[in-house]
Amino acid sequence: MKTTISIEKTKSERTRHPEDQLGFGKYFADHMFIAEYSEGSWKEARIVPYGPLSLDPGASVFHYGQALFEGMKAFRGQNDRIHLFRPDFHVRRLAHGAEKLCMPSVPAELFTEAVEALVKVDSSWIPKSEGSALYLRPTLIGTESFLGVRPSQKYLFFIITSPVGPYYSEGFNPVKIWIERSRVRAAVGGLGDIKAGANYAASLAASTAAKKKDFAQVLWLDSMERKYIEEVGTMNVFFKINDEVITPALNGSILAGATRDCVIQLLKSWNIPVTERKISIDEVFDAHKTGQLKEVFGSGTAAVVSSVGELADQDHRITINNNQVGDLTKKLLNEITSIQLGKKSDPFGWVKVLES
Amino acid sequence: MKTTISIEKTKSERTRHPEDQLGFGKYFADHMFIAEYSEGSWKEARIVPYGPLSLDPGASVFHYGQALFEGMKAFRGQNDRIHLFRPDFHVRRLAHGAEKLCMPSVPAELFTEAVEALVKVDSSWIPKSEGSALYLRPTLIGTESFLGVRPSQKYLFFIITSPVGPYYSEGFNPVKIWIERSRVRAAVGGLGDIKAGANYAASLAASTAAKKKDFAQVLWLDSMERKYIEEVGTMNVFFKINDEVITPALNGSILAGATRDCVIQLLKSWNIPVTERKISIDEVFDAHKTGQLKEVFGSGTAAVVSSVGELADQDHRITINNNQVGDLTKKLLNEITSIQLGKKSDPFGWVKVLES
Repeated sequence: MKTTISIEKTKSERTRHPEDQLGFGKYFADHMFIAEYSEGSWKEARIVPYGPLSLDPGASVFHYGQALFEGMKAFRGQNDRIHLFRPDFHVRRLAHGAEKLCMPSVPAELFTEAVEALVKVDSSWIPKSEGSALYLRPTLIGTESFLGVRPSQKYLFFIITSPVGPYYSEGFNPVKIWIERSRVRAAVGGLGDIKAGANYAASLAASTAAKKKDFAQVLWLDSMERKYIEEVGTMNVFFKINDEVITPALNGSILAGATRDCVIQLLKSWNIPVTERKISIDEVFDAHKTGQLKEVFGSGTAAVVSSVGELADQDHRITINNNQVGDLTKKLLNEITSIQLGKKSDPFGWVKVLES
Repeated sequence: MKTTISIEKTKSERTRHPEDQLGFGKYFADHMFIAEYSEGSWKEARIVPYGPLSLDPGASVFHYGQALFEGMKAFRGQNDRIHLFRPDFHVRRLAHGAEKLCMPSVPAELFTEAVEALVKVDSSWIPKSEGSALYLRPTLIGTESFLGVRPSQKYLFFIITSPVGPYYSEGFNPVKIWIERSRVRAAVGGLGDIKAGANYAASLAASTAAKKKDFAQVLWLDSMERKYIEEVGTMNVFFKINDEVITPALNGSILAGATRDCVIQLLKSWNIPVTERKISIDEVFDAHKTGQLKEVFGSGTAAVVSSVGELADQDHRITINNNQVGDLTKKLLNEITSIQLGKKSDPFGWVKVLES
């Protein structure tokens, strides 16, 4: 099924900023995609100039948290072609999230055609410098105006795009992570495994407190026993203990990250043992004490791979790999970014090269 | 401190509906209150015609769940005067929620003056029939446009109002409640004790599933042991066991309802033993088995007091008080609604009568 997407080009281009001053998520490109859902179907799929949404103050997104998003990237690859990274993964995850939030899913065709059409219209906004990208934010919100707790009967699906600069413009340096002992991001049986706004709302107080202590992000522990590791801030997390890489198994409250999946597939292809299982913070401390904790790193769409140099809470403070980026961490970052740009072959089928 | 609130009256009045057809949260009155927060202060407090909000698609409320609300009521009381119910309680709870969501709190003066000015402007929208009210929905949302997980630096505080009809227009009948065994609304350490959109998002799948089974709402159990009772759907819950009334203690994941507080204060004033403590679903089943479970009821702003006639899950189904509304439940509903309307004296200082 081919969706008809109308395109209205902007008459006043938005300000462009030098690539080394882009940062992350600060600026938006010229256009956005919008489609509306009501009475059982998606309607009026269109690309229009980036601009404000007009929503009734009774819209359910303002009251009952029906908000879900994806984060994905488009790159300027080899031969100047546009590379989309894992669009299929993101459309599947959005559908899973929509089901949990009682929202209609966005059909794969609509999602794919919208992403591709939008990226082509704003292709001049894809930055060229290494590590930069056009970040895409597909977003699904409830828009029906009513008060009373039930799923909305109307929705808006929109995609905005933001040119983002190299994440490691100041060097690929390890970050400090604070272990959150009292606050909880999500419980099993809740929304932790989907990209619902709700999870991020629940994370703000902890991450704000950690930043005040000069830590980059927090390490979340499970809501029941408060000892099993879930994820790091906005990333999944991996521990290299001796020659094995361990990451928390997807238990329903941990987000199934696209980059997490890349890391696992790569490690397997390299014959490096990788295990998805429960791992407690005490096991990490013990491995550090006995010299077996070799590397810790996070994975996510924004940072790709992030080296963790320090883990701390009120009573502990451990330094990992002398606060140096580990070899495996470096290799993973290099491999994934090389595949994204088409500098290395893509045996996993992660990259969709757009025909221009 | 007196806030200056500008008032722009509507030029095209909204459609009015007969009081017996109002329902709940379906229609909105002519005006709304809006104020904007940026650079550390609230600005441009104004009453304007009810109408759409214009927000950037990058606004944090669409992505990171910074959305918080209150629900309160204004009544047409004795001598035709306007009665606000517990505005002080709501301003305090909004402030507590704002702090947990890293949002600026709305100053008590601003909140109070906004509510009073808005209700006066739309006083003709307060329905007159018994059980009806003008429902007020103060709402606080993050509006800064950026992508990246951190608190917004801009906010919108708005109040919309909805004339609501008698909740028990079809009679004060007991409802059936489904015990949710797998899904979790909120965990201790999370956002359960505040009126964040996030909690309601997390509740939709369970309540939708319960409604399909012909149950009105769900009974939420704790996220850790899945046996202690938290609340019912959008209400707090009380169990009369022999002559004692028991309600779950506020543990951080249960909403501190305004009506819950009313019920506790009234029971104490009547010298009826009321205990806030952990209570498990098994204790309720046991009390039923031995004939000691006399009444079960919920409390909330919308329904005031709601009688529970049946509690069920996959393996249990108990009928309470022969599926009849209990005497204490009836007495509480009657007392609270009488105080709201000024038919009975208000020893607790719940009602604020507006000078016209």
